[in-house]
Amino acid sequence: MGSIEFEHEAENNSISVINQPLDPEEFRRQGHLVIDFIADYYKNVEKYPVRSQVEPGYLCKRLPESAPYNPEPIETILQDVQQHIVPGITHWQSPNYFAYYPNSGSTASFLGEMLCSGFNVVGFNWISSPAATELENIVMDWLGEMLELPKSFLFSGNGGGVIQGTTCEAILCTLTAARDQTLRKIGTENIGKLVVYGSDQTHSALQKAAHIAGIDAKNFRAVKTSKSSSFCLSAEALQATINSDIEDGLIPLFLCATIGTTGIAAVDPLQPLCEVTKRYGIWVHIDAAYAGSACICPEFRHFLDGIENADSFSFNAHKWFFTTLDCCCLWVKNPSALIKSLSTNPEYLRNKASDTKKVVDYKDWQITLSRRFRALKLWLLLRSYGVGNLRNFLRSHVKMAKVFEELVRSDKRFEVAAPRNFSMVCFKVSASSSLLKHENDDNEKEKKSNEVTETLLEKINASGKACMTHAVVGGMYVIRVSIGASLTEEKHVVGTWKVIQQHLDAILSS
Amino acid sequence: MGSIEFEHEAENNSISVINQPLDPEEFRRQGHLVIDFIADYYKNVEKYPVRSQVEPGYLCKRLPESAPYNPEPIETILQDVQQHIVPGITHWQSPNYFAYYPNSGSTASFLGEMLCSGFNVVGFNWISSPAATELENIVMDWLGEMLELPKSFLFSGNGGGVIQGTTCEAILCTLTAARDQTLRKIGTENIGKLVVYGSDQTHSALQKAAHIAGIDAKNFRAVKTSKSSSFCLSAEALQATINSDIEDGLIPLFLCATIGTTGIAAVDPLQPLCEVTKRYGIWVHIDAAYAGSACICPEFRHFLDGIENADSFSFNAHKWFFTTLDCCCLWVKNPSALIKSLSTNPEYLRNKASDTKKVVDYKDWQITLSRRFRALKLWLLLRSYGVGNLRNFLRSHVKMAKVFEELVRSDKRFEVAAPRNFSMVCFKVSASSSLLKHENDDNEKEKKSNEVTETLLEKINASGKACMTHAVVGGMYVIRVSIGASLTEEKHVVGTWKVIQQHLDAILSS
Repeated sequence: MGSIEFEHEAENNSISVINQPLDPEEFRRQGHLVIDFIADYYKNVEKYPVRSQVEPGYLCKRLPESAPYNPEPIETILQDVQQHIVPGITHWQSPNYFAYYPNSGSTASFLGEMLCSGFNVVGFNWISSPAATELENIVMDWLGEMLELPKSFLFSGNGGGVIQGTTCEAILCTLTAARDQTLRKIGTENIGKLVVYGSDQTHSALQKAAHIAGIDAKNFRAVKTSKSSSFCLSAEALQATINSDIEDGLIPLFLCATIGTTGIAAVDPLQPLCEVTKRYGIWVHIDAAYAGSACICPEFRHFLDGIENADSFSFNAHKWFFTTLDCCCLWVKNPSALIKSLSTNPEYLRNKASDTKKVVDYKDWQITLSRRFRALKLWLLLRSYGVGNLRNFLRSHVKMAKVFEELVRSDKRFEVAAPRNFSMVCFKVSASSSLLKHENDDNEKEKKSNEVTETLLEKINASGKACMTHAVVGGMYVIRVSIGASLTEEKHVVGTWKVIQQHLDAILSS
Repeated sequence: MGSIEFEHEAENNSISVINQPLDPEEFRRQGHLVIDFIADYYKNVEKYPVRSQVEPGYLCKRLPESAPYNPEPIETILQDVQQHIVPGITHWQSPNYFAYYPNSGSTASFLGEMLCSGFNVVGFNWISSPAATELENIVMDWLGEMLELPKSFLFSGNGGGVIQGTTCEAILCTLTAARDQTLRKIGTENIGKLVVYGSDQTHSALQKAAHIAGIDAKNFRAVKTSKSSSFCLSAEALQATINSDIEDGLIPLFLCATIGTTGIAAVDPLQPLCEVTKRYGIWVHIDAAYAGSACICPEFRHFLDGIENADSFSFNAHKWFFTTLDCCCLWVKNPSALIKSLSTNPEYLRNKASDTKKVVDYKDWQITLSRRFRALKLWLLLRSYGVGNLRNFLRSHVKMAKVFEELVRSDKRFEVAAPRNFSMVCFKVSASSSLLKHENDDNEKEKKSNEVTETLLEKINASGKACMTHAVVGGMYVIRVSIGASLTEEKHVVGTWKVIQQHLDAILSS
């Protein structure tokens, strides 16, 4: 490759000189090695402790203090990955991983990510790689149709979809658009009057986005939910909060409603909520980060009823839709509201295609300028499996969740702590359980049941046999078993239930 | 894999049933196919028109209207990638790509991205995958040392580094931290008084970040630069602007200084600028998105002199540092300022490791919660090539830029339009050229020279033989030839110069 000679330093005599870092045949050789490495990782992933067992600071003890001056072969590096990195991984791809919400990969999405990195284009505007923009337009319409989104959210209906990195970005973009739409009417000096609404179950992304966008912290409302309404945001409570804000001279701006909350997968009722918001011109964003994908199955689509009155909708294909991180799909009814807020037109990006206004320039739909060709992984996903298989993958997880739920119900020491809507089961050690019979009053029992549940969770995770996380809702500490890892089969769910029981046995006998 | 039976619809009889999307052996088989596909792409990339030649809307004519119900084999999909996607790609990896700034991949970084997608962990906090956080801590200190950043920017000196997606995010995070630090002193009701400074050459990311963060548009200052000071931001002009703002009762908040501006790679003088800013406690961010990487070579390090007085510094490893998009390296002196602004602590993320405060939870250093294990690609890059080769890769590009600059200077019809600091040459058809002799006054000549330069650029790009972009500075329309694609060799630079000359010949003879 070439014959570049270097002018500086006499260092070339002492190192292995590599002329350039992208030799196609070296790429091929090393690429095959890494494919095998990862395939073997998946084959063996079940053998590793699911939650990493390392202590803080483990890695700096194992790695050198500085970057090497000389090159090292890929074989050595892969050995180090196996020996030093794998022990520090919490294995989200393990079949015994049930923590948070899944981040489940698939072969198709992985391949799409490879093509994305291989072409390595920066698709900020149409001309910088027309395929990146146009394929995204197309797959977002495909996906929107699969979800039966109202036509007004699709390009074919003058709305449109964009792939963001995460829900945090989707919310920040839509909130900024809503903010500016209102400030154009009332003047920027009134930014301190704008109020943002969610429930106490809404993802922390909303509060963070509101903060970044300059919404005063005292104008953020996390409306309280309760067990009696399954921790959903009630339209009445929202109305009461809005009334009070208006009395105080504030201006209702933005509501984030959630389909599948992070804690317990509760579903906010879109129709009644939108009845309230439409009286005030509030921008409604629907965050269906986890559960949105399920709505491609006809039997789950009803959870989106009412969406026609919302302004924007997002779900994370990188959660429960078999797409590698990151891939948050956002649709908006009114792209021009986004563009008015997020557009920049520096001279160095000016080009004829953009000047015609006949193309989409996605830089104006998001926070960042640079953007990866993420549409490839969605396209490969949809084509490699087809809508039919994708539905069935999701249904198999829901079915396993039902199996797990039955197992919980069949052991009187436990209780299911919240209604199961999708593929997650929330449960706890029952306060009415005979285990806690020596506690006298109900509050004490509840407290004790929380403590035992928390201890149980820590023991399970420390065992490395399964990994799950918790939520606290309405004073209850609950364990969340969130089924969605691509490699999970019914035997893993049943096996994990045995692990849970064994750990409770051990706690009770100690 | 498993024996899940499906309850819904009778659709399974009519489709190829895939039981789950991550079978290790299928992953292996398909992964090898795609490695070969991409290796072949690099082998052939020189043959494709560099700038895509498609027309807006080309792709929707070639793809079906909806996602398929049935699965399709990877072989078919790859054929479609070749046939329908590749023509719509502007080939950023082509050796004849000189547009914008490079986004140059490397084998090592690609492999790191594969491992990142393979593990597919969500490293929002330490416990979610300790290796993801700790490796990032380590490589960011390694890189910081390579750049000879002051110790106060490194973890080892109580600062610290974080990998963001892009500079836009780095600026938005630091600006939000600066904003909140000041608002804690003066009260949130004074947000309308905060002023943000850059020059008229600063990247549009600054203005966008200021807008998102709720800084009033009338308080954004793009201080004018001029040809006489090589389009650098002058400390005197900054001081004058600040004086005027203070007289108006405003509060100077944030300066973004640039090492290697987007237009012409100008370098703002850090030392004099920081002399000004320190009088007012202004947060100084240094955006070295493109040129930062060069500072790992001793002969370029002087461009960062004065950095010890700044608060934060970022460069994009995905630009001129052989790392696939996205990978923006940000260091801050005071991580707690970031954390105070960007931290969230929802119950569902609470864990013992975080409670001890002995670990880094990167979710509090960035806008988004979810984050990829991007440290892997930097780690593989540094190890696979070593500091010595990485310096030489950069030097080889600078050397080629010098060769190109000489070629421009040797043809009297052209002029170099701005000093060359790194690997980019800005040039134009000369206004004093004899070609324009029939124009009478200097303004007319300048205008005509701009027009011819613009026409020339469009012809070159339309030819598909090379791709470059433009800037407008001080009224001059200039072509930027930015050398940094991994596959570029001197013969490509020399060949591109011939293409440029031929197109000018053709324009002049028509």
